[in-house]
Amino acid sequence: MVMKSSLVALINFGGDSILEENRPIPEPGPNEVLLQMHSVGICGSDVHYWQHGRIGDFVVKNPMVLGHEASGTVIKVGSGVTHLKPGDRVAIEPGVPREMDEFCKTGRYNLSPTIFFCATPPDDGNLCRYYKHNASYCYKLPDNVTFEEGALIEPLSVGIHACKRAGVTLGSKVFVSGSGPIGLVNVLVAKMMGAAAVVVTDLSASRLQKAKEVGADFTIQVTTETPQEVASKVEALLGCMPEMTVECTGVQACIQTGIYATRSGGTLVLVGLGPEMVTLPVVNAAVREVDIRGIFRYCNTWPVAIALLASKRINVKPLVTHRFPLEKALEAFETTRRGEGIKVMLKCDPTDHNP
Amino acid sequence: MVMKSSLVALINFGGDSILEENRPIPEPGPNEVLLQMHSVGICGSDVHYWQHGRIGDFVVKNPMVLGHEASGTVIKVGSGVTHLKPGDRVAIEPGVPREMDEFCKTGRYNLSPTIFFCATPPDDGNLCRYYKHNASYCYKLPDNVTFEEGALIEPLSVGIHACKRAGVTLGSKVFVSGSGPIGLVNVLVAKMMGAAAVVVTDLSASRLQKAKEVGADFTIQVTTETPQEVASKVEALLGCMPEMTVECTGVQACIQTGIYATRSGGTLVLVGLGPEMVTLPVVNAAVREVDIRGIFRYCNTWPVAIALLASKRINVKPLVTHRFPLEKALEAFETTRRGEGIKVMLKCDPTDHNP
Amino acid sequence: MVMKSSLVALINFGGDSILEENRPIPEPGPNEVLLQMHSVGICGSDVHYWQHGRIGDFVVKNPMVLGHEASGTVIKVGSGVTHLKPGDRVAIEPGVPREMDEFCKTGRYNLSPTIFFCATPPDDGNLCRYYKHNASYCYKLPDNVTFEEGALIEPLSVGIHACKRAGVTLGSKVFVSGSGPIGLVNVLVAKMMGAAAVVVTDLSASRLQKAKEVGADFTIQVTTETPQEVASKVEALLGCMPEMTVECTGVQACIQTGIYATRSGGTLVLVGLGPEMVTLPVVNAAVREVDIRGIFRYCNTWPVAIALLASKRINVKPLVTHRFPLEKALEAFETTRRGEGIKVMLKCDPTDHNP
Amino acid sequence: MVMKSSLVALINFGGDSILEENRPIPEPGPNEVLLQMHSVGICGSDVHYWQHGRIGDFVVKNPMVLGHEASGTVIKVGSGVTHLKPGDRVAIEPGVPREMDEFCKTGRYNLSPTIFFCATPPDDGNLCRYYKHNASYCYKLPDNVTFEEGALIEPLSVGIHACKRAGVTLGSKVFVSGSGPIGLVNVLVAKMMGAAAVVVTDLSASRLQKAKEVGADFTIQVTTETPQEVASKVEALLGCMPEMTVECTGVQACIQTGIYATRSGGTLVLVGLGPEMVTLPVVNAAVREVDIRGIFRYCNTWPVAIALLASKRINVKPLVTHRFPLEKALEAFETTRRGEGIKVMLKCDPTDHNP
Repeated sequence: MVMKSSLVALINFGGDSILEENRPIPEPGPNEVLLQMHSVGICGSDVHYWQHGRIGDFVVKNPMVLGHEASGTVIKVGSGVTHLKPGDRVAIEPGVPREMDEFCKTGRYNLSPTIFFCATPPDDGNLCRYYKHNASYCYKLPDNVTFEEGALIEPLSVGIHACKRAGVTLGSKVFVSGSGPIGLVNVLVAKMMGAAAVVVTDLSASRLQKAKEVGADFTIQVTTETPQEVASKVEALLGCMPEMTVECTGVQACIQTGIYATRSGGTLVLVGLGPEMVTLPVVNAAVREVDIRGIFRYCNTWPVAIALLASKRINVKPLVTHRFPLEKALEAFETTRRGEGIKVMLKCDPTDHNP
Repeated sequence: MVMKSSLVALINFGGDSILEENRPIPEPGPNEVLLQMHSVGICGSDVHYWQHGRIGDFVVKNPMVLGHEASGTVIKVGSGVTHLKPGDRVAIEPGVPREMDEFCKTGRYNLSPTIFFCATPPDDGNLCRYYKHNASYCYKLPDNVTFEEGALIEPLSVGIHACKRAGVTLGSKVFVSGSGPIGLVNVLVAKMMGAAAVVVTDLSASRLQKAKEVGADFTIQVTTETPQEVASKVEALLGCMPEMTVECTGVQACIQTGIYATRSGGTLVLVGLGPEMVTLPVVNAAVREVDIRGIFRYCNTWPVAIALLASKRINVKPLVTHRFPLEKALEAFETTRRGEGIKVMLKCDPTDHNP
Repeated sequence: MVMKSSLVALINFGGDSILEENRPIPEPGPNEVLLQMHSVGICGSDVHYWQHGRIGDFVVKNPMVLGHEASGTVIKVGSGVTHLKPGDRVAIEPGVPREMDEFCKTGRYNLSPTIFFCATPPDDGNLCRYYKHNASYCYKLPDNVTFEEGALIEPLSVGIHACKRAGVTLGSKVFVSGSGPIGLVNVLVAKMMGAAAVVVTDLSASRLQKAKEVGADFTIQVTTETPQEVASKVEALLGCMPEMTVECTGVQACIQTGIYATRSGGTLVLVGLGPEMVTLPVVNAAVREVDIRGIFRYCNTWPVAIALLASKRINVKPLVTHRFPLEKALEAFETTRRGEGIKVMLKCDPTDHNP
Repeated sequence: MVMKSSLVALINFGGDSILEENRPIPEPGPNEVLLQMHSVGICGSDVHYWQHGRIGDFVVKNPMVLGHEASGTVIKVGSGVTHLKPGDRVAIEPGVPREMDEFCKTGRYNLSPTIFFCATPPDDGNLCRYYKHNASYCYKLPDNVTFEEGALIEPLSVGIHACKRAGVTLGSKVFVSGSGPIGLVNVLVAKMMGAAAVVVTDLSASRLQKAKEVGADFTIQVTTETPQEVASKVEALLGCMPEMTVECTGVQACIQTGIYATRSGGTLVLVGLGPEMVTLPVVNAAVREVDIRGIFRYCNTWPVAIALLASKRINVKPLVTHRFPLEKALEAFETTRRGEGIKVMLKCDPTDHNP
């Protein structure tokens, strides 16, 4: 294949702008596929890296391609690839373990310290024209699933992994703390898993309105209540304490609320991340055997999400509120930064800006 | 309380008719409640006991009250009952372990050999005017759940227990073998638990039509295919082998089909019961780690079902196609025996024949 | 049965002495057995109630019989008891749920808010001559298991429940934080469950010596190290991070150590209880999916312990270092308070002071 | 590296002798290591392929190197290998999935249809001088674990996987059906996992004697008993029905016995494989919720076994009863075919025939 120029969206790690540069089109290795990118959603972490050059210990030290909510079309396959062929439309799971270590062998590959992850420094993301990826982490999209639905599997996966770790099942009463994008995804997934009732808390009435729209049964606008008071309101609305709480804010008081609110024997899942050290009523959780479990990204969620999208059991299309061609990436990032709409999509294929 | 006469529907264990006799109204023990019965559904096993006087090792040796799909109103509570009071409308779980043995202590009380079970000889059922039951197995119905919905929890529970044992979860591909009442309930429950696609097989096109109506994604009318051929059709329709199969017929060829059809690492749940000895391709199941699990009735399903009914996540009302007052029990049983409609309800409260 | 006088050891809830008084011999209810008590171990919580009259929210407001590590002989059975008869030697599980609620039905009866628990106010314990108990929570001892072994099942149960909640299994690397009685029991149980290596930390060299004696593979005497430093030492000794940590001190720094030390995807079990509010590196646990689980007493442990004792797989006899007749209860409590020996046994049967 | 000649033990797929030929020393790929083989145990399946040229659907169509119970020394590492270096002594897990498919991603890589497996046609085994293998499936042996212990991890793994699938845990009562090598390994592993009592059945008194030696608590020599009668004897010896049965013969009557013998709610694991179609009392299993689970080889067992061997919790050394240099492979195979001793080891390193 002749090397062609590629327009690439890059972070300017020292400033506040996104640069463009030409990079050679990568050559796929034996187990890789080369993709022509189609749709890439902008995530809050992309904006954060762009603005601040770091998240926690992950520091952008060299220009890095952003983007990890993505889908595209296979245009070349490595010699060892058997399940994909040129022309296949695929959704991309951004995390790829580099070694088959104990975490991979036991089905928790997201915990592998060897993992490659799109747009977590120093690993490049896929907000670009051409991108190569491990073929095993590219999932073929059925004809009735759009590229944008494929790109939205990434945020959906956070909810799937969180609700699985929470043990949401038929008839569950679920408390979702926080009504931002991740909270909403958890509401959506919890209901799909058979939850009988979901209550959502947030500071913002407008955010809670969105929770209602995606299926929340009850909402609580929190103002000055103590954690115990919020917990009591949750119980009152549900008619019982929830078996599981999915905490999506990372705020200390909210985690405390999550402990007080969760039924004995239940589970509090920590999705939102806040300060490193947090003060918690640990004895309250311990003597009621309320398990506290975090999540790190996700694993084994793409096949689940594709099956749901293919069967039309879930409609994520309304989440996309803005679209920009890749050339207008800067404008797209500004839009996300201003908190407009829900999900901004970048369209990387100049010949096809369809969903 | 003055002893009043009670009209009781009884099996004539030597013949084919249902008798009526007067029995004293029972007095609830310390942990029991006395119920005025409202709605009792007729189950195939009720008809079987009526016609044949036995099911397997369970033989009707004395007149026995039939009925175990039931709901009613608390009219008296035992001295130790704290969570119910007269006037409470309740659904009745028919199985009550008599001792807190190892099965009860580990959460599998349905397996307790000490279990009392309505209308399994020699235990009387609750198709009568007044009935006493262990209060811990009477579940208060919310105002927005009808008595008949309460009575339908029993058949629904078979599906809940089967799908839980099968491990149905978000995105599952499920194969339900048999489209009779139990098959239909499993379709319904599997979809509620997040299954992405359900395929149902049956000999009868009309039964398969009902499967479609309750949510089956695909159906296969089986005629002369071998088990392997049916398994291939299941895979072709789903686009992959199902992770779990729920076998509701008990027919040897269908169980064989279930083994061939289920994906490696998956689960085959046996709900339908046929002949004691069955010839199966056990090696095929074993070397693909397809687990074979049976179910015995259910446990811990009433709270789940009530939560779902209260949240209007499931609509079982259309299942009731016939209603008869208790006095016309014989006519009702004849209707069920002839296979008319779906579910026949007996109305035990002369003053209220509402759903 | 003629009512005979019973010598009873009671707490003086306002002072520091143990009183004796005569109480009538209780009459067993239908599901109860009357026991002639034989051996009762003194627990730290007994001493605490004796000295302080309260533990957390549990306050001794009336004279209360102490003791909950106990065994005795059935001398009378209630009308509904089928699995025990007079003369049976039994170990007593001190917690008995009063209602068959959702926690009991799902196999976690220890979490039932209705639970009766020996010597947790206001419930009387069994440090006395005659005591009645729910028959379902009295477990027959095989001939080759002594009364004292039967009484020691209670402390052993804490280790069994903790190690089960931790998920200890064949080949596990386990970190036990704290080498007091509970820590030692966890070492013992972890090894029995197949743990490949157990490392124990404590401030005291002599306590760590005991850990070695019961099977610890490695010990660390902690002095001024930070939590991270202790975690590093644990990893260095094991050759890898432990999959599970059992924290038995309740000290904030030790819980922090437990988080840092546990392998990604592993479990930290909180057994020791300290201050209500604790400051923890929650993000560290969350993003590595280290689950934090407490325990509340135990459930389903007596049959396990009896099976192990009967098969001579475990030797707990050396734990008993002191014996006193019931009349010398005060002396026995003083001995425990002074921290002498390991386990003090009170012998309640004047005619048999054997183990 | 200069290509040197390698002495290779090969099956003569058309006859009954083992041939030797020279093959070039293989070159490791990026994720592979080249090993100088040290000790390789002979398995019954090796003898079967040698004698019959096939096992079920697996047919030897070309000369195939035998051997899959093996250990050796790394002499060369591929460019991508990070956790091994020349000189490392390793045990070899013979099954290596070729693709990261759904089975691998969910921790059940043994079920991957893409798997490479030593000495299962058409894949060569490692009974030779030099052998290359995927580095992720080579596990470094601690200094205190011998090569032969490393080679014995393979048969040990069958027991670990079976007992894990059976759910053996602390205090379990276990029934092992069959006292051949696999039965013995299961006895050994069940006891290590904390089983309180293990009963073993076999036709042969001498085999049962070996079961006693490795830790069986009870044995039953079966002669003309029906399955139900054997089940009754198992219950009588254990004092209760076993929670789990590990069936190692594959004989129809023995599987039937396993169903009758297993406690309600328990698990029957099928390890032994017999005829494809088997007639079983499936209703008996189903209505008592006795799960029937097969095993296919093993997964995630090497780290467990190495941890146990390193901590000296298990002594497998006595299992090796014969040793032959690789040149005398034919004699070694004849010895195994005659059923002499327990385990025959081939020593592949001419310079070191130590254990």
